[in-house]
Amino acid sequence: MENITMETVEKDTFFMDRACDLSKKSVQKGCGPFGCVITDSDYNIIAEGHNQVTELNDPTAHAEIVTIRAACKKLGTHDLSNYRLYSSCEPCPMCLSAIYWARITDVHYSNTRTDAKNIGFDDEFIYDEIAKDLDDRKVKLKHVDSSNSLESFEIWSNMKEKILY
Amino acid sequence: MENITMETVEKDTFFMDRACDLSKKSVQKGCGPFGCVITDSDYNIIAEGHNQVTELNDPTAHAEIVTIRAACKKLGTHDLSNYRLYSSCEPCPMCLSAIYWARITDVHYSNTRTDAKNIGFDDEFIYDEIAKDLDDRKVKLKHVDSSNSLESFEIWSNMKEKILY
Repeated sequence: MENITMETVEKDTFFMDRACDLSKKSVQKGCGPFGCVITDSDYNIIAEGHNQVTELNDPTAHAEIVTIRAACKKLGTHDLSNYRLYSSCEPCPMCLSAIYWARITDVHYSNTRTDAKNIGFDDEFIYDEIAKDLDDRKVKLKHVDSSNSLESFEIWSNMKEKILY
Repeated sequence: MENITMETVEKDTFFMDRACDLSKKSVQKGCGPFGCVITDSDYNIIAEGHNQVTELNDPTAHAEIVTIRAACKKLGTHDLSNYRLYSSCEPCPMCLSAIYWARITDVHYSNTRTDAKNIGFDDEFIYDEIAKDLDDRKVKLKHVDSSNSLESFEIWSNMKEKILY
């Protein structure tokens, strides 16, 4: 377990302030009020980003996703196991899941999902929705049988050499 | 409510077969075994995609995210309210959340999250994790106070003209 010292508290505050500065710059240019910083384990900045959903016409361009993609591109890996993520706001379920897929385990946030809800964002609503059974959600997921649906899974299972993720 | 006719069942099966073909092509080139198709409400294909996580070094490049981003880019919007999504597998929480953010309500899948778990993917694990309270998760989210964290939210709230998403 990491030792929590005065120094690590100060560093965490420094990078959180930086993520919040990015969220302020983001909203000042008309983008969503969210910023993110990824550092390595020695607190060197690897990537920074802000919400670009409307700027890029990309509903997935949340601050954390933008920054994870930039960090991975820079490092040439899809695995950020040993990196730290600072987000100005508690990650939404999409971004939290992306954090799991990227294997990041050291995550910091400042504003909460309820703060986000209070200014009109759906973070809390989506958290509630995805925890439900498929038939109880607003978005109905319809199962469609396909004769070849499991074929690709079988090929994957039987591949001896493959890059896992 | 949409009328379910022989014709819509056949069309859904046609596009699901196509998504499954994409998943097969994906795994044959060493990528994850997942494919996706987005059509408009008249069943015209807008975008197709497959898992590119290891190909692009992008942990967010799941088939659905790749395809949503491509469809949005093509259409010049972050809002896919009137479009249909066909995924060869039940979307993971990241992709399901992206579906909510993109406002897609017509979603079809074939393989399940349990099928994905059975060949080593974390979909079900992440579903379980994000439903938990913050302190009970494997990834601990640490709250860090920042003196300016709510400032960007206040600016956003007070903006009279903004593009909502």
